[in-house]
Amino acid sequence: MFYYNSKDWLIAIFKVTKGDTVRALIPSLLFVSLLSWGIVQLEVNYLKLSESSQAKNITIMHTLLGFAISMLLVFRTNTAYDRWWEGRKLWGELVNNSRNLALKVKVFLPFEDQSTRTYFRQVIPLYAAALRRHLQKQSTILQLDESPHPELPDLDKGAHVPNRIAESIFYKVNSMYISGTISGDQLIVLNGELKSFTDICGACERIKNTPIPFSYSSFIKKFIFLYVATLPFGLALTLGYFTIPVTAFIFYALVSLELIAEEIEDPFGHDSNDLPMEKIAETIKANVAEIMS
Amino acid sequence: MFYYNSKDWLIAIFKVTKGDTVRALIPSLLFVSLLSWGIVQLEVNYLKLSESSQAKNITIMHTLLGFAISMLLVFRTNTAYDRWWEGRKLWGELVNNSRNLALKVKVFLPFEDQSTRTYFRQVIPLYAAALRRHLQKQSTILQLDESPHPELPDLDKGAHVPNRIAESIFYKVNSMYISGTISGDQLIVLNGELKSFTDICGACERIKNTPIPFSYSSFIKKFIFLYVATLPFGLALTLGYFTIPVTAFIFYALVSLELIAEEIEDPFGHDSNDLPMEKIAETIKANVAEIMS
Amino acid sequence: MFYYNSKDWLIAIFKVTKGDTVRALIPSLLFVSLLSWGIVQLEVNYLKLSESSQAKNITIMHTLLGFAISMLLVFRTNTAYDRWWEGRKLWGELVNNSRNLALKVKVFLPFEDQSTRTYFRQVIPLYAAALRRHLQKQSTILQLDESPHPELPDLDKGAHVPNRIAESIFYKVNSMYISGTISGDQLIVLNGELKSFTDICGACERIKNTPIPFSYSSFIKKFIFLYVATLPFGLALTLGYFTIPVTAFIFYALVSLELIAEEIEDPFGHDSNDLPMEKIAETIKANVAEIMS
Amino acid sequence: MFYYNSKDWLIAIFKVTKGDTVRALIPSLLFVSLLSWGIVQLEVNYLKLSESSQAKNITIMHTLLGFAISMLLVFRTNTAYDRWWEGRKLWGELVNNSRNLALKVKVFLPFEDQSTRTYFRQVIPLYAAALRRHLQKQSTILQLDESPHPELPDLDKGAHVPNRIAESIFYKVNSMYISGTISGDQLIVLNGELKSFTDICGACERIKNTPIPFSYSSFIKKFIFLYVATLPFGLALTLGYFTIPVTAFIFYALVSLELIAEEIEDPFGHDSNDLPMEKIAETIKANVAEIMS
Amino acid sequence: MFYYNSKDWLIAIFKVTKGDTVRALIPSLLFVSLLSWGIVQLEVNYLKLSESSQAKNITIMHTLLGFAISMLLVFRTNTAYDRWWEGRKLWGELVNNSRNLALKVKVFLPFEDQSTRTYFRQVIPLYAAALRRHLQKQSTILQLDESPHPELPDLDKGAHVPNRIAESIFYKVNSMYISGTISGDQLIVLNGELKSFTDICGACERIKNTPIPFSYSSFIKKFIFLYVATLPFGLALTLGYFTIPVTAFIFYALVSLELIAEEIEDPFGHDSNDLPMEKIAETIKANVAEIMS
Repeated sequence: MFYYNSKDWLIAIFKVTKGDTVRALIPSLLFVSLLSWGIVQLEVNYLKLSESSQAKNITIMHTLLGFAISMLLVFRTNTAYDRWWEGRKLWGELVNNSRNLALKVKVFLPFEDQSTRTYFRQVIPLYAAALRRHLQKQSTILQLDESPHPELPDLDKGAHVPNRIAESIFYKVNSMYISGTISGDQLIVLNGELKSFTDICGACERIKNTPIPFSYSSFIKKFIFLYVATLPFGLALTLGYFTIPVTAFIFYALVSLELIAEEIEDPFGHDSNDLPMEKIAETIKANVAEIMS
Repeated sequence: MFYYNSKDWLIAIFKVTKGDTVRALIPSLLFVSLLSWGIVQLEVNYLKLSESSQAKNITIMHTLLGFAISMLLVFRTNTAYDRWWEGRKLWGELVNNSRNLALKVKVFLPFEDQSTRTYFRQVIPLYAAALRRHLQKQSTILQLDESPHPELPDLDKGAHVPNRIAESIFYKVNSMYISGTISGDQLIVLNGELKSFTDICGACERIKNTPIPFSYSSFIKKFIFLYVATLPFGLALTLGYFTIPVTAFIFYALVSLELIAEEIEDPFGHDSNDLPMEKIAETIKANVAEIMS
Repeated sequence: MFYYNSKDWLIAIFKVTKGDTVRALIPSLLFVSLLSWGIVQLEVNYLKLSESSQAKNITIMHTLLGFAISMLLVFRTNTAYDRWWEGRKLWGELVNNSRNLALKVKVFLPFEDQSTRTYFRQVIPLYAAALRRHLQKQSTILQLDESPHPELPDLDKGAHVPNRIAESIFYKVNSMYISGTISGDQLIVLNGELKSFTDICGACERIKNTPIPFSYSSFIKKFIFLYVATLPFGLALTLGYFTIPVTAFIFYALVSLELIAEEIEDPFGHDSNDLPMEKIAETIKANVAEIMS
Repeated sequence: MFYYNSKDWLIAIFKVTKGDTVRALIPSLLFVSLLSWGIVQLEVNYLKLSESSQAKNITIMHTLLGFAISMLLVFRTNTAYDRWWEGRKLWGELVNNSRNLALKVKVFLPFEDQSTRTYFRQVIPLYAAALRRHLQKQSTILQLDESPHPELPDLDKGAHVPNRIAESIFYKVNSMYISGTISGDQLIVLNGELKSFTDICGACERIKNTPIPFSYSSFIKKFIFLYVATLPFGLALTLGYFTIPVTAFIFYALVSLELIAEEIEDPFGHDSNDLPMEKIAETIKANVAEIMS
Repeated sequence: MFYYNSKDWLIAIFKVTKGDTVRALIPSLLFVSLLSWGIVQLEVNYLKLSESSQAKNITIMHTLLGFAISMLLVFRTNTAYDRWWEGRKLWGELVNNSRNLALKVKVFLPFEDQSTRTYFRQVIPLYAAALRRHLQKQSTILQLDESPHPELPDLDKGAHVPNRIAESIFYKVNSMYISGTISGDQLIVLNGELKSFTDICGACERIKNTPIPFSYSSFIKKFIFLYVATLPFGLALTLGYFTIPVTAFIFYALVSLELIAEEIEDPFGHDSNDLPMEKIAETIKANVAEIMS
């Protein structure tokens, strides 16, 4: 993720960055323009339809469905944004949680117990780092897929590293309780932070391995395709060669919304707008080190 | 559920999968096309209405109501999606909960108590498996139905299996507390996980046995039907035989939104977009086995 | 509530059930049709306005306000649906809560204490039954009304039955704690379920006694009335006698949205789409009996 | 607040109540009508523009912006409604909280301790009454205002009465704990209710002292003003004197949405749709008296 | 922040305040007007296109995309508003939290322990003051930025002041527990307030260092730019010189929505609509002083 100044309009409008939809869309835009050109040629020069031909009224269809497709795409973007923002919130909770656990452990431990201190200073940031790697593994993505994957023979064999680390932390805290290093009241006070690690991990896995229903996603793409592909039939007679830029612009606007949604709906990938998990893990490491030093 | 790459447009647009609305809609699309053809025949060839007939202005009605129907359907899809996503969240919580309970029990139990360990290794995944079967039973679906069901004579007789399993877990944990295997502080720490099982079960039952109000669902279908069935009356004179594909496309777009909503609003069924409860139950089993091994 | 198969389109479209808006609207639809007929008569046959009269441009107003009224009504429906769904969630929580309390009490109580067991087996389902009766009482509905009600002289006199039952449960649990039947840790573990009863009751009362602000509800009705009543003035010259079905259909679509919202915004009444509180109370009774048997 | 039957259309449409937007809008409606009349006079009679003048196409602008202004106003209403409903929820929680605290204290206290009983019977309802007065004080409204208020010299001097009452309750409960009247487990069980008072108070203060951002609110008003003031320029040539009622109706619809939003966004005032805090406080008083009698 | 009377329309419409979008937009409005003028000159006077030229139908494109751009902008404003309101809620929680901690500590501490009292009276308000400074530091804003910042060499060196203060509070409370000044039950009762400080801090950091995805923000700006820049091509032939004010007004409406969103999406800055963190910190200081006096 790159921090940007949202008030800088010139950069936003004219700089075409790596993740920009314009760049990804160049081939499709050329194709759509060619298609429009072909349809205009057909209607105007080949069939020589007059301006009063009924074909030009096809645009009524695009007007009637214009509300539906726009609304569907804007809601699509917002659903995707909600997933992205939920992912960010989960990693924010991981930061809070790591800090609170470090703070509590630090003050609960007797001053001379340096080895336990070192243990927590290392293992708390480790959880964030392991979670990041876990979320980017192929086996996490395909965890709930019901189709066979012969190309990944040991899909289910890998150990669940974040669970292993959580287990280690639980074990340590319970030993401290058994040995009397911390009291029962302090155990209760630590409970919230301990269980939160696993809750965050499970919620991130959910976002990662469950895209929006295929029928929803597939319908949106079919709808955009049919909508844009039929546009020139109606426009050719009223707009002539202006049909080409007009169709291209409408295509650009609609498809961009879908492309942005696709990019941000899985916030744990490697796209340029995905969450800076590595940076957050570093922040946790620095914070815990500062607290427990 | 099948994991798919949301960035693959060609598959989304051209592959007609099992759950695709296009497939389900073929008969209705044929009927709508036939209806449109009939209306065009009637107005153009039989009644021979001129292009200036007032009938062609009927389209004003469809424009004025176009906002309402589009918005209603998009909100419908989103309400259904919220139910689907809530279902997924609940099963995600079940994963978290099962993991946390396994982690806590493992570290709380003395090392030599192998029988209790075995008990929890078996019973925690059992809850997920039983909940899946419970949610797909006819008696769960009809739990709140007020009409008589003579065809299902023992509707209310069946035992509530998830409650039985929860009872067994509660009983085991309480015995451990009574016998001093775990302390009172540890009992308090386990409380969250114990009650969460029943909370998840009840919330899934709620989604399963309470569809959106019938008057809402029925009105949407009536509205689509009347909207599409009156479309050709207005379009026939402006579009001629183009009326047929135009009406069919508008019908396809509107009905698809409703069909997708119907499919995903009950996420615990057997549709191809329903939640992979079996896969999640397997994940829980593997995770608990790994943790408690 | 009647469970229905949301995928059955024929029933949804052609069966006019008791709660259907079509049935309730028949008189108004006749009135609107008559009004439209009158306006068409006036403009076409009496005033003999030509098709180029400025009156026909009045439709511009309906187009400009078409967005606003559609959006307002869809949001209205969704606000009402949210209230209905919140009501369902609260009764779902009541189920969860009753089950969890029964489960906990069962395992906490010594096996021989049959009288306390019987007490809880009776009193937990009683709460649900009493809450249902409480929510349907006139005094609950008018609890926050600031106008005088001479027709209901003892409006505020009635005892608050759910509170009385909650008090009894609290008292029982506390006695068990005082007498040592349950420990302090077990008291803490029971706290969540105990307070939840009163929280659910209060939230249901809130939905029941606080309709959406009157100015909001009244404005929506005024807006629909003025919108539909002025429609024929614009349409008469372009649509002739087609004005009558067109106005009637627009009226039907807009008013239905408002009628559905009115029906579901108070989910605790006797309408056919209201929550099946009696059925839920029976479920609780059966579940608690099964658990505590 | 007055409870109303949301199904009574005649009253909603024809009764102009005190808080009705129609009443507040009469002067503005007259002004807008006069303005429209003036513009029609100017274009039709003074400038004698023909019907083909380009001026009549100005309406394109109003169509293009019609979506934006409608959507903005509907979202505005909903944001305001969310604040109103959040306020209602907070006061609902206060009811729940007061009841639960009364219930717990009653069963925890030894039967003979009449003075403590009396203390709680008086002080719990006092919190609601004090919170109501606190929320309607000028100093609460202006708490976060950064402009100077020479007219209110002792703005920050007043004691924070709800905090004082909360302190008294905390003090009482802690004394009971110190003296052994209640145990530590019971103290923990009371914690939720004790801290909830202050949480509710703070959340109400937030809604009261933080209106939506001024730039947002001011833009909406500017947008409505410019939109309506330019309407007659486009409509005059197509609608003639019909421009006057058409402009007035559009003005009425748009401004009403904003007026309703203004009225309900601060639910703790004296408007006729504001929350019946006094009634709720009375309910709390009656409930606590009934419980603790 | 300045408190304003949302019912004062004259000020809202005619007073151009410091943060008003009109002021910021004057240069762009001039540029857009000039551009429109140029395009009108080109089409009308230079190319001398007739009114029946196909160029005038380009407006169809703006109508079809009008829904999409309006909806996108309204959702944009609402997403930004949600961030602003979440920020306000977090600072509201900080107020509640500070008050509750002060209340609890006051009643838990023995009367004679003046030094601990003084400690808390100073350190609780300090957290709010430190959090405000922390959120406005450059290093907090750029915390997750992946680009290098040679201009800020010690970006990561600074101590995390809020964490330091939280540590101090945790340390103090734990010492009180170890030394027996407060009991274990009281420690558990204090836990919620103690961990909440860090949770609030982390959530504010999240809003501050994570703007909405760049591809989303950049697409909106590109869309507005292309939409407005192509408007005059379609309007010039139907509106003549009226094109200039019409384009300018549409530009003003669309861009204002984006500008307001930009201003409020980071609520912790120095814009005139940003949260009055300094005022809230003062309120906390006054409240804590009053409680602990």
